[in-house]
Amino acid sequence: MKKIIGILGGMGPGATADAFEKLVARTPAGKDQEHIPVIVASLPDIPDRTENIIHSGVSPLPAMLNSLNILKEAGASCIIMPCNTAHYWYDALKKHSGIPFISIIESTCERIISEDKQPVAILATTATIRTRLYQNKLAKSAATYLLPDEKDQDEIMKSILLYKSGNSELAYKTLLPCLVKLEDSGAKHFIMGCTEIPLILHDLSRKQPEKYIDTTEELIKKAIRWYYS
Amino acid sequence: MKKIIGILGGMGPGATADAFEKLVARTPAGKDQEHIPVIVASLPDIPDRTENIIHSGVSPLPAMLNSLNILKEAGASCIIMPCNTAHYWYDALKKHSGIPFISIIESTCERIISEDKQPVAILATTATIRTRLYQNKLAKSAATYLLPDEKDQDEIMKSILLYKSGNSELAYKTLLPCLVKLEDSGAKHFIMGCTEIPLILHDLSRKQPEKYIDTTEELIKKAIRWYYS
Repeated sequence: MKKIIGILGGMGPGATADAFEKLVARTPAGKDQEHIPVIVASLPDIPDRTENIIHSGVSPLPAMLNSLNILKEAGASCIIMPCNTAHYWYDALKKHSGIPFISIIESTCERIISEDKQPVAILATTATIRTRLYQNKLAKSAATYLLPDEKDQDEIMKSILLYKSGNSELAYKTLLPCLVKLEDSGAKHFIMGCTEIPLILHDLSRKQPEKYIDTTEELIKKAIRWYYS
Repeated sequence: MKKIIGILGGMGPGATADAFEKLVARTPAGKDQEHIPVIVASLPDIPDRTENIIHSGVSPLPAMLNSLNILKEAGASCIIMPCNTAHYWYDALKKHSGIPFISIIESTCERIISEDKQPVAILATTATIRTRLYQNKLAKSAATYLLPDEKDQDEIMKSILLYKSGNSELAYKTLLPCLVKLEDSGAKHFIMGCTEIPLILHDLSRKQPEKYIDTTEELIKKAIRWYYS
């Protein structure tokens, strides 16, 4: 059977496009026909993940399962989901999928552990922080991590929402002071643990790829390894 | 019924990612949920379009119809195909689709005619030139166009294949002298009539968007208008 990667996207659409672009760019192909077959479902009318976790809003799970079913029916043989917060529902989605489902959290933590990138600061949505998606995984390997204080976490969340609303410049300006403070507190590395953050910090993180860990990039690298395995 | 745009992609995957990224970037959305639902089929194992047209290679139509069926079954209510050469099969695909199918050739020519962008040079694959996809459409509106000479057309084709093989820098260096000659011959505008060309000429064309007409961009703008109509 032909291998096809399914991208469960739309959370947000910009991060989905970024993941797809990175997948194409990182594939060692010499012509069109050598590229990895991909189906993308970017159906962004998925209830807000953070709203659900923090304020008990509508569950996004049924809409996510709908996208997953579309990908499976289209022939996907492996799923990736370029949204960190959505990985709160990873176990439920993986179980339902019945096919390989590569976790962005695991892909990222594997790199942090294997390259000993500590202490690492976690930049993510308030929901990703509250549900301890990264903290639990890092703690298992006794990796040292830092979190922003509550006020800065609000600023980081504001920055993500600004980016989603189309204001990338203000998003950057809002996020930057939080990085400085985390660095002053001892952070040597940063997990860009929301797939909008590599877009907000695009120029800065490109210059220091060893310092800023791009979760989308880690997910894509693992997906490409799966394809060629 | 919910409107969903289906992107019939993979020709090539880089151009598909570019089209998706442009669709997201040009959509006037304030949050994830306001974005346009999109399904992308990037199944690049489609026989080479230029090979088929020029050297009677294997027909790409069955593989293109397969992608089209996947998009329809996934719920697409309108199709776009970010590949100019593939529009040689546009009528057959449109007839089979039974849903709106926006042509990249028509979208581009509409802008050229309405903004009187003449004389315009056509930069495209040798197959797109030989099958007169742009020439026939422009001639109907009595628009003046220029074509590269045969030697330069070979260089343009070489540049496109270089880009597809991952060598973007050499692709740019190969294409540039052809532009200069066309400009010396009187070209005031350029149709970037292969969806790899806006990628090859990325920096140059961004600086002069009135001179370099991005066919992917024109297709996306029309698709967004369709969505909001």
